[in-house]
Amino acid sequence: MSGFDQGTNPYTGEPAGPPVSHTPMEEIDRLASAAGRAAPELAALTLERRAQLLRSAAAALEDARDELVELADAETGLGSTRLGGELTRTRLQLEMFADVVLEGSFLEAVIDLPDPAALPAPRPDLRRVLVPIGPVAVFSASNFPFAFSVAGGDTASAIAAGCPVVVKAHSGHPGLSVRCGQIVGAALADDGAPSGAFAVIHGTEGGRALVQHRAIAAAGFTGSLGGGRALFDLAAGRPDPIPFYGELGSLNPTVVTPGAVAARGEEIARGFVSSFTLGAGQFCTKPGLLFIPKGHGLDDALASAAAETEVGPLLNRRIRDAYVEMSETLAATPGVRSLLEPSTVEQSGFRVPPALLAVSATDLVDRASTLLEECFGPAALIIEYGSTDELDAALDAVPGSLTATLHADPDTEPELVRSLLDRFSAGAGRVIWAGWPTGVAVTWAQHHGGPWPATTSSVHTSVGVTAVRRFLRPVSYQNVPDPLLPDTLRDANPLGLPRRVNGVLHSGPIALVPTESSAIESVAGSGRHAGNPA
Amino acid sequence: MSGFDQGTNPYTGEPAGPPVSHTPMEEIDRLASAAGRAAPELAALTLERRAQLLRSAAAALEDARDELVELADAETGLGSTRLGGELTRTRLQLEMFADVVLEGSFLEAVIDLPDPAALPAPRPDLRRVLVPIGPVAVFSASNFPFAFSVAGGDTASAIAAGCPVVVKAHSGHPGLSVRCGQIVGAALADDGAPSGAFAVIHGTEGGRALVQHRAIAAAGFTGSLGGGRALFDLAAGRPDPIPFYGELGSLNPTVVTPGAVAARGEEIARGFVSSFTLGAGQFCTKPGLLFIPKGHGLDDALASAAAETEVGPLLNRRIRDAYVEMSETLAATPGVRSLLEPSTVEQSGFRVPPALLAVSATDLVDRASTLLEECFGPAALIIEYGSTDELDAALDAVPGSLTATLHADPDTEPELVRSLLDRFSAGAGRVIWAGWPTGVAVTWAQHHGGPWPATTSSVHTSVGVTAVRRFLRPVSYQNVPDPLLPDTLRDANPLGLPRRVNGVLHSGPIALVPTESSAIESVAGSGRHAGNPA
Repeated sequence: MSGFDQGTNPYTGEPAGPPVSHTPMEEIDRLASAAGRAAPELAALTLERRAQLLRSAAAALEDARDELVELADAETGLGSTRLGGELTRTRLQLEMFADVVLEGSFLEAVIDLPDPAALPAPRPDLRRVLVPIGPVAVFSASNFPFAFSVAGGDTASAIAAGCPVVVKAHSGHPGLSVRCGQIVGAALADDGAPSGAFAVIHGTEGGRALVQHRAIAAAGFTGSLGGGRALFDLAAGRPDPIPFYGELGSLNPTVVTPGAVAARGEEIARGFVSSFTLGAGQFCTKPGLLFIPKGHGLDDALASAAAETEVGPLLNRRIRDAYVEMSETLAATPGVRSLLEPSTVEQSGFRVPPALLAVSATDLVDRASTLLEECFGPAALIIEYGSTDELDAALDAVPGSLTATLHADPDTEPELVRSLLDRFSAGAGRVIWAGWPTGVAVTWAQHHGGPWPATTSSVHTSVGVTAVRRFLRPVSYQNVPDPLLPDTLRDANPLGLPRRVNGVLHSGPIALVPTESSAIESVAGSGRHAGNPA
Repeated sequence: MSGFDQGTNPYTGEPAGPPVSHTPMEEIDRLASAAGRAAPELAALTLERRAQLLRSAAAALEDARDELVELADAETGLGSTRLGGELTRTRLQLEMFADVVLEGSFLEAVIDLPDPAALPAPRPDLRRVLVPIGPVAVFSASNFPFAFSVAGGDTASAIAAGCPVVVKAHSGHPGLSVRCGQIVGAALADDGAPSGAFAVIHGTEGGRALVQHRAIAAAGFTGSLGGGRALFDLAAGRPDPIPFYGELGSLNPTVVTPGAVAARGEEIARGFVSSFTLGAGQFCTKPGLLFIPKGHGLDDALASAAAETEVGPLLNRRIRDAYVEMSETLAATPGVRSLLEPSTVEQSGFRVPPALLAVSATDLVDRASTLLEECFGPAALIIEYGSTDELDAALDAVPGSLTATLHADPDTEPELVRSLLDRFSAGAGRVIWAGWPTGVAVTWAQHHGGPWPATTSSVHTSVGVTAVRRFLRPVSYQNVPDPLLPDTLRDANPLGLPRRVNGVLHSGPIALVPTESSAIESVAGSGRHAGNPA
């Protein structure tokens, strides 16, 4: 455990940022145990104070914007414009979760009043609310040094849930992780967060120990299929398994129909290139597969758009080497043609040329295991289909995905459109119409997830308000006297929470809820109008 | 695979019901694949038709009440009164989920309208709804032949979610499982459920194959720690892991404080005995541990209540043998005293005497691994504590539980009460005041779950309305034109669903929702009044 991480500057390949020692095992035990002790204290803070913690962390990051963006660019090469936007998103995520905490519906408070006439037995007073699951291990991503890292969405949603967080920093940006950890840690401490509520560790072995530590109750992860699967297996293999919410790999298929090619083929070609090369193709939502009819006539449009695109360097040497190897393997696969000849210009640092390859839908099916491996970086595969049957067979070979995108003409291809939208909603977490998957708005309605291998748990999301669900567990109180109930469930509803009382959504005191003889029997009748302010 | 299951009559130990062949492996593949093909058809039914499937299954079971209760009693020995009540509960569960399907809030429809002014980037139209996860494997329990078996809560909630179900019948009541399968299958088919939407299989090896079958998307399980862990490991070890919702084992600690002993010690003693012997102690919610102050003076009350209790036979020979062995091991553990001498009356069939043992809190801590193993059957352990510190240390040794119960006097022991309630909400899924954990009302507010080993996933419940969540995954639609959206998300809200539009709960068309400039920014303000009909 005497190792260390140090960033490299992707523009030059030279060391960047300070060397950061791997956290010793005894320190990981100490930090995880401290998180366990902090859990009840953090959970006991009022919602106002919990929200304030999130706002303070957001403000502290904003205050350090210039320093952080510079540090991040040195270690990731993502460029100050993109990184500045990502820092803004990270701040807004923290602030959004502060709003969510104050709004209170995330607690899902439900009250069923006693019913002595219920069948098959009289029913007691039952009140359910979500409570923090306990300390959360957060595994940072390389490709979003702010939004999916130390103070990213997993951390924000875990704190919003009332859970302490121990972040495993990504080895690609250790210096930035140290600084973000210091800034967030100080902001939380200044606001009275309990000691142990937040920490950052470094080192792969330490991360493995963390996910197996008895005090850790859940984990969030964004990264590779291999790394995520290894940690998932450790979490599932514990004597007491814990939920492991991993976002792993996604090919993000995009289908272009004949109608769309006819209507706006060149525009689609340009949009596609722009999306798959964004951030040097290092987005989890990169559209890696474009299904397009044979004879589309867009080779030149695609090739010239790609050739004209300025692509930044890849994040680090390992990713660069893997990209070069995989894009060469793809290009050398029988049946694959290259639309774009690799640039002969000498590349500095970890810059690579974009790769744009094409294959027939039938060849894709025949060589699915090679061609459908995710290639992290600015590479994409065009799949040319000769018929709807060929398209269907090729799409059958594509595993679960974060997103699926459709460019089509509903007026002339209504059945094809219907069938593809149905297929997409079964196989992906987000279905996009006539757009591109890169760019993930952080809102109530966002879902960033999907069937394996997109995530380890298609039931949950890592982006958007509902990400907080991952770190909450329900508790029901049976016949507990009002003064002993948590404030969230008391008759008077002192927090003004939206609650479901005997099946009816209501945010006032129980005394003002319309009377119902039985929660079960009244569900359909009362619920139909639930939440209707009219 | 030439084996078969046959029930035994627990009253006599003789074979009961028909022998039922284990389902051949090729048949399991056929049924799981058929469930996979049925999934999109079942998902496409209207909510009204989905609800009707649940109602029809409920009515068909009710119509066959006499036959089913008789069959169940022959194979389980639980008695016709209890079994009749359980059948009623099973019917009501199905009907409750029908109401839930019609009410529609379980779909969690959320709409965020586009926001061109959003930071860090303009925001598209995003609409999120929950969709069925796909075919569900349901593993039946021995101890609830109706409510947690072929047509039990897992099946009801999976169908409510829109998922096909393949039930692995419990080997203890194969004849009943066949009949329930026929009745439910016919009712669903008569109502137009797609072929393959429901099936029952038999045999342990078949169950292992089922949870690993590529078409199965999730599993529900109620049973033993060992059996559940083995299946959980198979589900997590798949090339594409699936969620495995297992309810495994629970000790259900009950704490009695000095104040409660003083106020109503004898009543508590009687209630405790009545609860831990209910159903011959074969409830997952059996209060297996009673923490009570040293010198409680209730030995005689406890022993005589237990001696007077009529206890039915255990479910089968394996459970009887395990019970005899474990209760003898517990009684022979150093420091343990028996409050109740085993009856010398010859027992017929699988009848066993109740076992009531006592140990000091300090001895419990010293011998936790032996004394805190769940003993399925009419046995309970009284733990006598000399101080609050001793009580705390003993409770620290108790793992996660479905329930935790407190008998106390809040007027004279306010701090103790506060501390125990906090501890219970951290370690159990349901906190019960001055009552007993057996008996689980099926309502909106119920939570039947808890930290490991109570369940494999403390985030979810297997009883109550929110059990449906386990079998739903979110999908977001981005910029999809209104006519192509699912009805759940269309502007006009043709289903009248409660939805969250730009942060505001509303069940009308979008045009009637109050305008908000930004969902994120408006969360706190608008949400505070969300759902308030006033």
